[in-house]
Amino acid sequence: LRPERNQIEHIARQAASGQRRRRNVVRAGIGDDCAVLRAPAGHDLLVTTDFTLEGVHFRREWYPATVVGHRCLTRGLSDIAAMGGDPLAAFLSLALPPGLEQAWVDGFFRGLLRLARRFDVPLAGGDLAQSELRQAPGSPGRVLADIVVVGAVPSGQAVLRSGARPGDTIYVTGALGGAAAAVAELLRGGRDRKAAGSYQPIPRLEIGRALRRRRLASAMIDLSDGLSIDLDRVCESSGVGAEVDAAAIPCARLRGRMVELEMALHGGEDYELLFTAPASSRVPARIAGVPIRAIGRITGGRKLFLVRKGRKSLLRPQGWEYFR
Amino acid sequence: LRPERNQIEHIARQAASGQRRRRNVVRAGIGDDCAVLRAPAGHDLLVTTDFTLEGVHFRREWYPATVVGHRCLTRGLSDIAAMGGDPLAAFLSLALPPGLEQAWVDGFFRGLLRLARRFDVPLAGGDLAQSELRQAPGSPGRVLADIVVVGAVPSGQAVLRSGARPGDTIYVTGALGGAAAAVAELLRGGRDRKAAGSYQPIPRLEIGRALRRRRLASAMIDLSDGLSIDLDRVCESSGVGAEVDAAAIPCARLRGRMVELEMALHGGEDYELLFTAPASSRVPARIAGVPIRAIGRITGGRKLFLVRKGRKSLLRPQGWEYFR
Repeated sequence: LRPERNQIEHIARQAASGQRRRRNVVRAGIGDDCAVLRAPAGHDLLVTTDFTLEGVHFRREWYPATVVGHRCLTRGLSDIAAMGGDPLAAFLSLALPPGLEQAWVDGFFRGLLRLARRFDVPLAGGDLAQSELRQAPGSPGRVLADIVVVGAVPSGQAVLRSGARPGDTIYVTGALGGAAAAVAELLRGGRDRKAAGSYQPIPRLEIGRALRRRRLASAMIDLSDGLSIDLDRVCESSGVGAEVDAAAIPCARLRGRMVELEMALHGGEDYELLFTAPASSRVPARIAGVPIRAIGRITGGRKLFLVRKGRKSLLRPQGWEYFR
Repeated sequence: LRPERNQIEHIARQAASGQRRRRNVVRAGIGDDCAVLRAPAGHDLLVTTDFTLEGVHFRREWYPATVVGHRCLTRGLSDIAAMGGDPLAAFLSLALPPGLEQAWVDGFFRGLLRLARRFDVPLAGGDLAQSELRQAPGSPGRVLADIVVVGAVPSGQAVLRSGARPGDTIYVTGALGGAAAAVAELLRGGRDRKAAGSYQPIPRLEIGRALRRRRLASAMIDLSDGLSIDLDRVCESSGVGAEVDAAAIPCARLRGRMVELEMALHGGEDYELLFTAPASSRVPARIAGVPIRAIGRITGGRKLFLVRKGRKSLLRPQGWEYFR
């Protein structure tokens, strides 16, 4: 399909306004067959792609367009953070239903580009399409986005999921369960919907980078799907198990009240980092102003356990399915 | 959403079987937060993303799943070819409707991975999602794919769209209009539907690379949307115009008959290359066995003209809209 030329130019102009120091990374951006990037010498490349699909990952009536754009890029940047990397450029494939208001599209890009500028990541290309050729009667049409982030990390230093060893301590950044609690509020249709829909997680790029530089993390992942499921991924990749202390989990606060443990254990979209480090490592209590909490330890088995009031029970990896 | 772990493993295994010589490009592939690639020294990176959306870019009842997978990757590889580059790795974001038969998914990957092996491109990552959480009654659900290809080209040598100069000759590879004629056959519902639906264009990677190495092309683009619209893009980027000789356009043959000129002028998805070269350049008649034809010249104006039987008329950039 042929997107309007002036829409592409409009996006390219908006995107260009976000490029400052990094302009020299992008030799050719939006408007050629490919983007051309200068690859930093002595570095490995990181590549991540993440869908943001209306009806699956968000509802248009719940979130302002700026929040949808912000979160779309957060998904990609958070993956770069989880490798200890540095983002070089972002690419967006975006399919829009016919008849979608321009104000929504502008808001989406405003949110996405604001976050891009904060971390100095140029939007260097992508694809633009209609999500449907004809609007089916009664069908609202769907927004489909796929964000690609290309990053770099000094050669051989990417922090993988596979490096956790029995005896390592498990840490998480920030507080957990806040995003899931906000969705629960939206589902309830309570009066705090507006506040709940405006939640904009910040990818932990400085923390990931600091952990990699100081060689503190033996394994790392971002908490996109929930602590239990993402910890299980680290354990599976590393061939290990884990014990988590329920009392040590930093539960987020929503309007002054601590969220339920279930939300912190299984809620997704917090975009905090989970990492492991040898017990002998001196992991600071804060990095870049964000608290770092030890929540358990890696074990030799292949199972996950939750220790709660002295009792140990199996921790089943499960994400909290938002829209079911 | 949480894709089945065994589905990811299944894809990772299939993808791994496609990696031979290039295995050393991918340090970590499917199964971490990001793929980790070794960046070749002295090279710029190329990045391209392209949607393949059911109902917009293909109809499931028209094409075998293998053809949809093949074409999905062709879109990305063809963009790398148009820069004179070398593909390093591909990434696929794929959203599938609930209830889609596994045989379709397997066929899609078979087609995609066969093409990937042919050009030695590992599938190094991506995203997997459901395209809808619940199947709406009466809704067939849609397959959504976004292909990302990362490539490399010696630093500063990417062939851009912006290098065409007045006096340059315009060339195209292969023959044009075949893909559009096949779609016309499918739309007519004729008895050659099966043959028409099995058309699998081959990205012109060898040709793009050869032109870049010999420094023959001043500008290049792949013909994804149609000669008139893609030539206009080169002219716009280069700030020039063009004259095309109708008689020189290599029209494709379908069942022994030459396709109409309109198909060759405006039909998309041929994935041939269009490039320009100074009139003094010695451009070979064939590269990698594919004929190269001079079809016109770049002019100083900003307009496109078609010269047909001695008469010059305005050539309006227009794509042939398949599904309208």
